[in-house]
Amino acid sequence: MGRRRIFVVAGPRSAAAGAGVFEAWRAAQLSVHVCDWVDREPDIALFARVLAAAREFRPDAVVGFGGGSPLDVAKLVGALLHSAQRVEDAFGIGRLQGRGIDVVCIATTAGTGSEVSPNAILLDEREKLKKGVVSPFLVPAVAILDPQLTIAVPPSVTAATGLDALVHCMEAYANKFAHPAVDVYALEGIRRIAANIEPAVKDGNDLAARANLMLGALYGGLCLGPVNTAAVHALSYPLGGEFHVAHGVANSLLMPHVFQFNLPAAPQRYAEIATALGVTDAASELATAEAGVRRLAELSAACGIPARLRDVGVAESDLPRLAREAMKVTRLLKNNPREVTVEAAEEIYRRAF
Amino acid sequence: MGRRRIFVVAGPRSAAAGAGVFEAWRAAQLSVHVCDWVDREPDIALFARVLAAAREFRPDAVVGFGGGSPLDVAKLVGALLHSAQRVEDAFGIGRLQGRGIDVVCIATTAGTGSEVSPNAILLDEREKLKKGVVSPFLVPAVAILDPQLTIAVPPSVTAATGLDALVHCMEAYANKFAHPAVDVYALEGIRRIAANIEPAVKDGNDLAARANLMLGALYGGLCLGPVNTAAVHALSYPLGGEFHVAHGVANSLLMPHVFQFNLPAAPQRYAEIATALGVTDAASELATAEAGVRRLAELSAACGIPARLRDVGVAESDLPRLAREAMKVTRLLKNNPREVTVEAAEEIYRRAF
Repeated sequence: MGRRRIFVVAGPRSAAAGAGVFEAWRAAQLSVHVCDWVDREPDIALFARVLAAAREFRPDAVVGFGGGSPLDVAKLVGALLHSAQRVEDAFGIGRLQGRGIDVVCIATTAGTGSEVSPNAILLDEREKLKKGVVSPFLVPAVAILDPQLTIAVPPSVTAATGLDALVHCMEAYANKFAHPAVDVYALEGIRRIAANIEPAVKDGNDLAARANLMLGALYGGLCLGPVNTAAVHALSYPLGGEFHVAHGVANSLLMPHVFQFNLPAAPQRYAEIATALGVTDAASELATAEAGVRRLAELSAACGIPARLRDVGVAESDLPRLAREAMKVTRLLKNNPREVTVEAAEEIYRRAF
Repeated sequence: MGRRRIFVVAGPRSAAAGAGVFEAWRAAQLSVHVCDWVDREPDIALFARVLAAAREFRPDAVVGFGGGSPLDVAKLVGALLHSAQRVEDAFGIGRLQGRGIDVVCIATTAGTGSEVSPNAILLDEREKLKKGVVSPFLVPAVAILDPQLTIAVPPSVTAATGLDALVHCMEAYANKFAHPAVDVYALEGIRRIAANIEPAVKDGNDLAARANLMLGALYGGLCLGPVNTAAVHALSYPLGGEFHVAHGVANSLLMPHVFQFNLPAAPQRYAEIATALGVTDAASELATAEAGVRRLAELSAACGIPARLRDVGVAESDLPRLAREAMKVTRLLKNNPREVTVEAAEEIYRRAF
């Protein structure tokens, strides 16, 4: 691409894993600055520090190297590098004013889909709520997916990120704004992830399973732009914001309960999801769909994901507050096939408790 | 979209079919100019006349209403309306300099895919060769697909346009530059078209078959941008350019012979295509793939498409010249899974003769 000054956004572990790549770039006479500060799901303050470092380095391209967190930060750095807009004013859909320079995303987990999506998520640490920036200006110029880079991902992260990608696909397929151009990505992502997540969790060196999982996650990422997720993600954000439950764990834990709630509103769509999950058709659409929900709970358990909110530090007395917080994520709740009231949200949390 | 002056590009029949729509727009206080001159596959002179009429009308939006020909012309009008670039200088990939105003495409056939593709085809009448403009600036702002608009399409056109869409999918799937983001569209398009084209040809009022065919053609259109077609289209253009064989007929007639030639280069891909066509797996990939090619010939015959070049006005002595002409379509030949020499092209025409 003819660029000379590369600002890399990574985490400490992904930066170490990428050392050989960065050395090769330096050997090709590129100036490479590796910023490896994204060691957790990023908040506004961490993003501001990375953006300041990037402005000081004056790159002509930004590379995100890692899981969803560094990729999201890299995308926002690329967009805001030369902008006077504050990130706080970009939260929401279509509010980003432009893009500064191109971003290349190199994924090292199979899950986020951030490498192809127009989304970036930051924690608003004051409000203890995760917030999203959604804009075509965030779509990376190039996405590179090499399953070799995911071989070292530990089983618990493989499980959580893989199930997160599965949720991307399922929430896009059973979605008020589902669209034929996205439906095929959603179903193919579900098929590949459902068939390969257990093998990849049990044997991290299974490169075929890793490749299928990564491709499934890519399809999940392609669902994130034009259709996007729904109530599972909306209800999971307060768990990340306040209790720092990993994004994929929060989604996996909530998905059977949200889908059970949603079933009556879209039985055919959930039956088709169940078939893609590998469930044999039952007597009725609704029965097939319900078997799909049971299959999801089994899949989470087989992958070692905690099954209950009480297992991740949430107390029963927290549930009403979580429900009120979730109601703020209107940009995703509007997509859900069944309307979620604050009472319904609390009931879903209670069933997951 | 807030636009007030609408320049409609149509054919005489599609303009008649759309009369009620245009009246409704006028009733909503829009200024509507219907240019119904696209009564054949368009050449450069016809395009120039339509562009001049559009410039005189000074629209703020262009609507393409019809099959592939009016849609292609509408897209080029939208791109060149305010441009000094000549269309002759835009032929090829990525040569268009910009876009003037937004284009809305309303498809009345299920085949072209032009409503979502970055391509437009014109006949260069001097060289007697069809030439393509390929550019992201040609992607319409809005595509509207309503299967009701295809009910009146006669069986022969349903057959030719539907098989053309099938070829879009197959040439994108067995393609040197095949890509996972397009593969799923290609296979889903093949499934829907193969399962619905005969019912739609035999009973034009079968709205479910019409809808599936239209959706399949949309998936075919989504294959046309980033991956695009290959040798079937390259070899079919001289048939359109010199003998005015309808685009879909030329493609259907050539496809079994081109694919038979290609098989050894991509047996797995052609076997997967065969499966999507509804062929049961045979003993080997190659056997399955060959059964797929036979199925294609049967499908063409069942849809009443001429099977041989001699049936569409070509003489045996024309074949060497056709082969030389086809070699000029390098932008598509480069995509073909097996290299096509001028000798190979002549042999393919000979088998189709």
